[in-house]
This record gives sequence, C-alpha cells and structure tokens, in this order.
Amino acid sequence: MPRIVLGIEYDGSAFFGWQWQTARRTVQSELETALSKIADEPITIICAGRTDAGVHALEQVVHFDTQAERSMYGWMMGGNTHLPDDIRIIWAQQAVFDFHARYSAIARFYRYVILNRPMKSALLRKQVTWCYQSLDADKMHRAAQYLIGDHDFSSFRAQGCQSKSPCRMMHFIDVYREQEKVIMDISANAFLHHMVRNIAGVLMEIGMDKQPVDWAQELLLIKDRDQGGITAPPDGLYLGGVYYPEHYGITKHPVFDKLPSDAKRFDDRPKV
Amino acid sequence: MPRIVLGIEYDGSAFFGWQWQTARRTVQSELETALSKIADEPITIICAGRTDAGVHALEQVVHFDTQAERSMYGWMMGGNTHLPDDIRIIWAQQAVFDFHARYSAIARFYRYVILNRPMKSALLRKQVTWCYQSLDADKMHRAAQYLIGDHDFSSFRAQGCQSKSPCRMMHFIDVYREQEKVIMDISANAFLHHMVRNIAGVLMEIGMDKQPVDWAQELLLIKDRDQGGITAPPDGLYLGGVYYPEHYGITKHPVFDKLPSDAKRFDDRPKV
Repeated sequence: MPRIVLGIEYDGSAFFGWQWQTARRTVQSELETALSKIADEPITIICAGRTDAGVHALEQVVHFDTQAERSMYGWMMGGNTHLPDDIRIIWAQQAVFDFHARYSAIARFYRYVILNRPMKSALLRKQVTWCYQSLDADKMHRAAQYLIGDHDFSSFRAQGCQSKSPCRMMHFIDVYREQEKVIMDISANAFLHHMVRNIAGVLMEIGMDKQPVDWAQELLLIKDRDQGGITAPPDGLYLGGVYYPEHYGITKHPVFDKLPSDAKRFDDRPKV
Repeated sequence: MPRIVLGIEYDGSAFFGWQWQTARRTVQSELETALSKIADEPITIICAGRTDAGVHALEQVVHFDTQAERSMYGWMMGGNTHLPDDIRIIWAQQAVFDFHARYSAIARFYRYVILNRPMKSALLRKQVTWCYQSLDADKMHRAAQYLIGDHDFSSFRAQGCQSKSPCRMMHFIDVYREQEKVIMDISANAFLHHMVRNIAGVLMEIGMDKQPVDWAQELLLIKDRDQGGITAPPDGLYLGGVYYPEHYGITKHPVFDKLPSDAKRFDDRPKV
C-alpha cells in the first residue's frame, strides 16, 4: 500500500497536544479527519515526535498508508482545504524504501524561544515564553554543553514518562540572544517526556543567576527528577525539524549540518 | 500639566483600528480606559500615526496630559495590568519641551511583511500577508526607488483620505527577502490614508511580473488613484517606529540612521 509523507506546521496553542484523545481537539485528530475526507477512507497517521498541549511545530513529519491515488499536490492542497487554519501541510511526497516517520528518524530538532524583556508580548502571546528577569544567554549556553553526548537524562524526565530507557544521545544545544529573544536550539536522537522544557527550565534558572553554570552537570549526574528545575512553559517550544537518512529523500534542515557524522537513530523497539 | 509619553505595541487583528469609535473595540479606547483607571481621571491620548483596522504596531508613540502623579514604572506596569493582552506599553517617559506625539514627529517607519510560499501560515495567521505567487523582491525594491523624494502621492491615496495635501517626503523604501518572507521597510515624513498598503499592492503586482518595474513611476506621475493597484491587506502591516528631534530624548530606532540629515517634520497645521 503506498505510503505518503507530509511536512506539517501548526500553532499548538489551541490543541490538547498531538495525540488523539476522545472529544479533545488534537493535531492528530484534525489531520486524520481532513486526510480521510481526501482519501475517502479512514486514515491513521504516525508522527516523528508527539508534541504536548501548547507546543508548536515548524516542521513535524508524519506518514500514512492509503489505497487512495492522489497527486502529492492533491494531498497538500486538498488537505489544507479541509484543515483548520492553525494547521498547514507544507509539503507532501511519496515514501521510499521502508520509511517510517518515527522509527527512521536519526534526530529531532526543537527550538525554545524566550522573550526576555520587562513586559509580555502583545504580538506573540502564545508563541514565546516570557521571562522578565534578565537572562545571560552565554552562561546558559555554557551550562548546556554539559548535556552533550550519551547520557542518562533521568533528572530531566517527566514523572509519568513511559520510555523504557532514560538514556538519549544529545547532539547539540545552542543558546543565543537575538535582540529581546533568547533562543535555544537543541537536537538529540530522541527526547524523553518534557525533556526539552525541563532543560529549558534549568538553563533559565542558570541564566537568571539563581544557580551556577555547573548545576546542569550536577543535575545530570544525580539522575533524580525531584532535584531538577521547573518545567518551562510550552508556549515558546517548537518542533523545528526531523532528520532522516539521506536515501529517504527528505529535505535536510540546515541545522542538522552540525550533527556528528556517525549519528544513529534511537531504537527502543524489541529486538527479534 | 505634566505630559507623559508611551511606546505601545499591539496586535491589530482584533481591533477596529486605532481611533475611538462608539461601541467598537479600538486601541485608543482600550488605552484611554486603562490609563484613566491609573490616573483616576479621564485621559485622552494622541498618537503619532493612526493605524487602520487589522494593522499592528511594534512601536506606536502616544502622549497624554494628566494631573495624576505616578512614576514612569507605575504608568507602564499599572497600564499593562489594566490592558487586554493584545496591547502592551513597552516604555514610559516624561515629555520634555513642547513634545507632541503627532506634530513633533520627523518620520514614521512602517514594515510590511509578506509570506511568500504556496500555503498560508499556521503560526502567523493575522500577522503576515500571504502571497502564493513567487515574488521578485529585487524588482520590487528597484520599482520602489522611483517613489523616494518629495512627491504628489495621489495615485497611492485612499478615496476618502482627508489630508489637505497629497504631497509627502519619502525617505526610503527597502524591499528584501528573508527566507519565505518578503519585507518592505518604508519611511516618510507622514503617510496618506492607505498609502503604505497601496504602495505594497503596486510592488506586489510588479514582484509577480504582472507589471513592469517602471509602473511605479508611471503611477506616481499619473496622480490618479483610479489607475492604481489593489490595496494590500492590513495583516502584514506594522507601524515600526517614529522618529523625533533628538532633544526630545525619545530613543531612535536604528532604521532611522538612514534618514537624510535635513529631514523635517510634515506640517499641515494652519499657519498663524
């Protein structure tokens, strides 16, 4: 059965997250409803990274299998016609080989955007996290470097996280200032539940000088969520892109040029 | 009576423009309501540039006179407490000399942001103007240069515009591409009604190759609105900043470094 791959952009502020839930407005359910109309059959979609309530996507990647024969233009334009205006399909292509939106991914890239000024934004009300205390982006960047590499991220994992392993390979974290914004770009093979927001929460406390730079390392070594920092709000969080092996033909986000050449996909599937 | 000056940011998408109207939600009426609570007396505000319905501001400048004695921090923080979340006071200072938000201004700077890609934005739904046909930003920039200088802008003026003179001094227009966005930065001593959106409409037709580059000059010389292009939508339009003589002590937006050194304020007040 043909498999279709889509790039998806959404504003998460009016959704109860990605995943289908009874009687709740979720990105998955809106997408499945729209695509099922185009396909004229029930469509089930798989995504690269399930985002929480309030979290946005610049480029989520999803796939679905269908008997329906439509052009790629038809999936994209038809889908957008049936979607609410806070979700857009930004590209569509046929899957090749054994492509799987979730299991084929080598890396996920998230961007966390903090508005760092005395007053909230009138223009980006649900699309940045607001911090009125002055942040030292350079300190935050230095602290983040302790997290690079293969680590047990138990201190940065939500209580209810259902992943079998707390270990992930962190490829890079860059924290930098752009005028009134402090931005964190973060890439790993995969992320634990709330991991980006927990890292952002810790780095913000360091950026405000409430904790020293090496607190990031200390927490990593403790492997205890109870010692961790606050979970930063979802408003400023964006799934920025997903990287797949080149033979799948998915356009590579330039941020992934920084990946180590031996980056491998995360695999917690049962071995057969 | 002391005069207070404020910098104001707003998302114009849920307002019937700047100016007070009976039973309509406008930026002026929301601001006057909030400030009157802080002042404990009726406040009337004057702005540098009245924006239309749907038009945003990165930095509108306003002033008001009051008997109330409050700190600048009090005006800003108190005002923001009473304002809806789509308006923010971003700075407050005491006026010096004969400062007047409208009459003292030497230049206004507007930014027009076009999202130029096949599908609308899920994230910036009311904050960019969408154009799916490919735009040549370089052609738009070249066309815009015909409008620089002191000209009769009758071809770019709304039918109902009440200004006595159709002449304005255009300081600069820069059109450039930033990834999927085409941005126009435009500064003049003052603007006629719909002037920025009418210029944007003409430049977009040129950018889509529906008209030649010198159509901008042709229209300027015709001085006839009926021959003009479409009025571009308000969604992508932002009042970006206002420039005052240095002795008023209002922080200068860096974009105004490009102003000619002999730039003078627009004056259509009756001479006495």
